[in-house]
Parts: sequence; structure tokens; C-alpha cells
Amino acid sequence: MELNTQYDVAIVGGGPAGLSAAIYAARGGLKTIIFEKTLVGGQITITAEVENYPGFEESVSGFDIVEKMQKQAEKFDAEIKIEEVKAIGLEGLCKIVETNKGIYKVKSVIIASGAHPRKLAIPGEEKYTGRGVSYCATCDGALYRGKVVAVIGGGDSAVEEAMFLTKFASKVYIIHRRDQLRAVKILQERVFANEKIEMIWDSVVQEIQGGDFVENLLLYNKKTKKTSELSLNGVFIFVGIIPSSDLVESRVDFDDQNFIKTDETMHTKIPGVYAAGDVTHKVLRQIITAGSDGATAAFSAEKWIEENKDKFK
Amino acid sequence: MELNTQYDVAIVGGGPAGLSAAIYAARGGLKTIIFEKTLVGGQITITAEVENYPGFEESVSGFDIVEKMQKQAEKFDAEIKIEEVKAIGLEGLCKIVETNKGIYKVKSVIIASGAHPRKLAIPGEEKYTGRGVSYCATCDGALYRGKVVAVIGGGDSAVEEAMFLTKFASKVYIIHRRDQLRAVKILQERVFANEKIEMIWDSVVQEIQGGDFVENLLLYNKKTKKTSELSLNGVFIFVGIIPSSDLVESRVDFDDQNFIKTDETMHTKIPGVYAAGDVTHKVLRQIITAGSDGATAAFSAEKWIEENKDKFK
Repeated sequence: MELNTQYDVAIVGGGPAGLSAAIYAARGGLKTIIFEKTLVGGQITITAEVENYPGFEESVSGFDIVEKMQKQAEKFDAEIKIEEVKAIGLEGLCKIVETNKGIYKVKSVIIASGAHPRKLAIPGEEKYTGRGVSYCATCDGALYRGKVVAVIGGGDSAVEEAMFLTKFASKVYIIHRRDQLRAVKILQERVFANEKIEMIWDSVVQEIQGGDFVENLLLYNKKTKKTSELSLNGVFIFVGIIPSSDLVESRVDFDDQNFIKTDETMHTKIPGVYAAGDVTHKVLRQIITAGSDGATAAFSAEKWIEENKDKFK
Repeated sequence: MELNTQYDVAIVGGGPAGLSAAIYAARGGLKTIIFEKTLVGGQITITAEVENYPGFEESVSGFDIVEKMQKQAEKFDAEIKIEEVKAIGLEGLCKIVETNKGIYKVKSVIIASGAHPRKLAIPGEEKYTGRGVSYCATCDGALYRGKVVAVIGGGDSAVEEAMFLTKFASKVYIIHRRDQLRAVKILQERVFANEKIEMIWDSVVQEIQGGDFVENLLLYNKKTKKTSELSLNGVFIFVGIIPSSDLVESRVDFDDQNFIKTDETMHTKIPGVYAAGDVTHKVLRQIITAGSDGATAAFSAEKWIEENKDKFK
């Protein structure tokens, strides 16, 4: 395979963090390449309606926003390659990015490979994603004003999201496969005191059903061994989020859930290697926060390359 | 004056950080009020052309972006008041915001009061701001491809910005009032080695002149006592940035330049009080990073209010 050496920065992942990094890096004069293994846009492309990305007062699809970001990055001559990164060599001053199609020698790397919610892997889940099935209450909760929804899960985030959803929904079921919640005590007390919330214990969802949008769930009670149907408008699935951080495994610092830890400049502990967006340890995973990380990572990479200019000669 | 008690969160400042906080807070179900003393939008409204806010592939004015953010916040019922905050009481569980028009008792406060570049305070500076005069190379550098520009200042940021500008401009003058730079040695060496950069020592700018756009500078040499003219297309002024953090003086933590220090949730050290955007200690001051701070601050305020629900009864 040919060795490509003309790039200043390689960005792994073409979601909002990677695209924002590309806009800033390329506009800042860096020769920039983005690697995206499937479709540009990342997780957000499955969101039908984004109401809270600042600057878009009319709601817009996730797909439309990232398409605009892509055009913006390309306007500044960032190159976008649909190639899967197989390995990254981070040891030397220059980094080596190996994809399914080529080998690239670059000065710096920004890991923006994202994360994905753990799926239930049941019939109807994929079909209704963005049409009643959601993995983010902050993103989609407000779309369910006066509607009936269910939260699947029993941990802190499931319970917090259920509480949040009671601001909008008329009724929130929490469906949990055990007979008690894993969430901390104080959260549990609030849940049980909330009149809008009803617990459905010992139950798993077998299928998500509907027409164009979600209409009901097929539930299976593990204790009674009986199945039942539950009518509703939305299902929020919170059974974990998985960072796509395998590529840099054991070489950078991670939090206890395998999200990459960076400093405030988005720098990992390896010189010239940055991380941005959902793959990093962070408080809130949204387009605006991913975009901010990407811009900051690109700014930091640009400064680092400038500082090490003489070494790269 | 009447005491208004119906708000969950008061946001001080109506720039991108404050507006983003309002979008997230109001959409999250919090009763939200923004106080802006002059015009909604903050510093960015003086930027004629924003090319790097992710999602706007055609360049757009700063004014247009914040107008969209304002409409978006108002769509979710955030209230925007053109009132100047005179004092904030942060001691109790509820916070007191006193403006020139009223007194507000709120559950949480987000300080998003921004910052402003130190001005030279010379004739022509205000007139040509956004028309050749800039305070941000990351924002405007790319607009000066093949043009002649000057950087005013001698510190690290002036020198870094001058280096950055050489990627675009054909010629970069650094005009400094002393006979040596304050910037660190390694930066100085790079500046002196850069063929595009020319130093103008011992000089101050007396006036910025031009037609519709900047055309020349009137310089005064403090040693020779002579004035001269310098033809150019752009002037980048880097003589310091001043946070608008007086309102919370001595009550939160600051960095050595008086920017507010927060944790990763944008929390200051006072319960229920958050800070976001240019007023905070941060790596990169841009719309996207301010917006991210605002969203995170609102998310954190929402969680804090939920956790303290019983106390607010």
C-alpha cells in the first residue's frame, strides 16, 4: 500500500466532533484528513429532529446539520475518506494511521470516534429508532409533551432520565428486568414519590410494535412467565453507552467506563494526540459539546505542530 | 421594586453562552430568564463574517447567528430582559438578582457575562472594527489571504497570533511600543526567523485610517519622535482581554487574569451558581465553545434544582 505523508492532522471519526475539528484545523491552515468508516455524521444522523443545537431556530434533522458541517469542512479543503481505521501508531513524533485502504503518516491525530448506546437487540428497535425509540431524553424528551413513554433500564441514568421525562410526558413507565432499581437511594425515593411514574418490575421488552411510529411494547414478566402489551408513544432505552475507544486501548487514560480522559486542551497523555466528542469523558453528550471539543482539539493540535515545527523538518 | 420569584434560573449575559444556556434550560423545563444590559448577542455581533461556527457552511454574520439563537430560546419560553444586573446575592439557597429595573429571586444563576478585548482607544478603532480591525486571528485570519496586516502588541498571544496570520497574509507587521517583545524566548526566535514578519519597534498607533475599510495606520516612534504612515489591509489588536467578572468578585475562584474557574460541569464553588463562555477560564474563546459551556451549565443547573427540590418547597 502507498504511504501518504502529506497530512498535518488525521481525524478519526466523521461525527460533529470530527467535522468541527476539521473545520477549525483546515481553516487554520492544517492539511486535514478525516476517516469515517461508514457514513459521515455519526450517531446524530439517526435523530429525526434536533431542536437544541444553538443557531437553528427551526428544528432540523441530525442528518441536515452534519451535512452542512461536512460541506463547511470541505470548503476549507479538509479531505473526507470513507475508510475504516484499523490501527494507529502513536509512538513516534509522526503518527501512523492504517486504514482498510492505505497507510498515512501524519503529525497529529484527533480521536473523535464517538460512542453508541447499548441496544436491546429486539425486534422493532432499529425500525423505530427516531420514530418513537430514543436513547437521549435531553435530545428528544420535549417531543413527548402530554404523551405516554417508557424508560428501559434501572441504573442512575435511566432513573434520572425518567424524572426528566415527567416534565413533558403525561405518564412514564420504568421497565426493569429486576425487582429493584440499581440507582442510588435518593433517586429511588423520588421515583417512587412521583405520581407520573409507574414501575414495571421483573420485565423485559420482547418487541417494539407500531405503524409509522411506536404504538406498543410486548413485555415478558420473568417471574409470572406471562406476556402482556403496553400502549405508548415513546420508548427511551438507557441500558448503557459504549465508547468506540478500542483503537487507542491501554495507551491513553480512560475513565472507569472506557471513555478517554483528556486535559482542558483535549490533549490525551500522548504528545500530538487529542480526543474529542462522545468518545471522551464528559458531562453532556450533545452536538454543541462535541463541536466545542473538536474546535479545541484542532486549535491545540495546530499550536503543538507550530511548536514542534523544527522537529518535523 | 417588585420581587419576582417565579424563575428557576437567571442567566447573566445574552451572548452565545447565555443564549445556549437558555435554550437548554428552557427546553429542559426550567423557567428561564436572561439579563442582557445592552444588545442581545455579546461580542460576536461585531463580527461581520463568521465562517467557522459548525453547521453554517455559508459564512454568516455574528448578528444573524445570535438572532437565531435568541428566537430559539424564546421558542422554548425563555424570557429575555434588557436590564443591567447591578448585584447578585449568592449566599442563600435562593439567589437574588438585582437589576436596574427589578429584583428577582431565583433558584440558580449562570454567569455568562463575557469578556472584551482591551482597546487601544484611538481614532478609527471603533469605526473600522469588523472592517479591517479585528481582535481575533482564529476568527478572521483566513479573510486576509494574500493581504498585508499588522499585529499590535508584544505578549505571547500577540506573537502567536502573528505567527498564525503568516499562514494567510503575505506580510505581517508586529507593532510594539517597546524595543523588545514580552513573549517567551522560543516564540521570539520563531518570529525573528519568519520572513513574512517585520518588527516595528518603539512605536504606537495614533490613528487607524481608511475609506470603507482600513487602509493605513498613523504610527508614532517614541524614540525618534517621528510619525509615519503604514499601508495595510488589516489590524489585529492583542493588548489583553478583560473578563466581565466584577459581579461575582471575590466570591468564586478566578485564574490570574480574573477569568472564573469552574469544574467540568461549569459549576463555580457556590452551590447553584454556574459560569459559561468567555468570562470563564478556557482554552479557546469561540461561539462553539461558549455554546457548549452554556448547554453544560444549564444541564448541571437543572440536575442541581432537581436534587434540591424538597428544599425549595
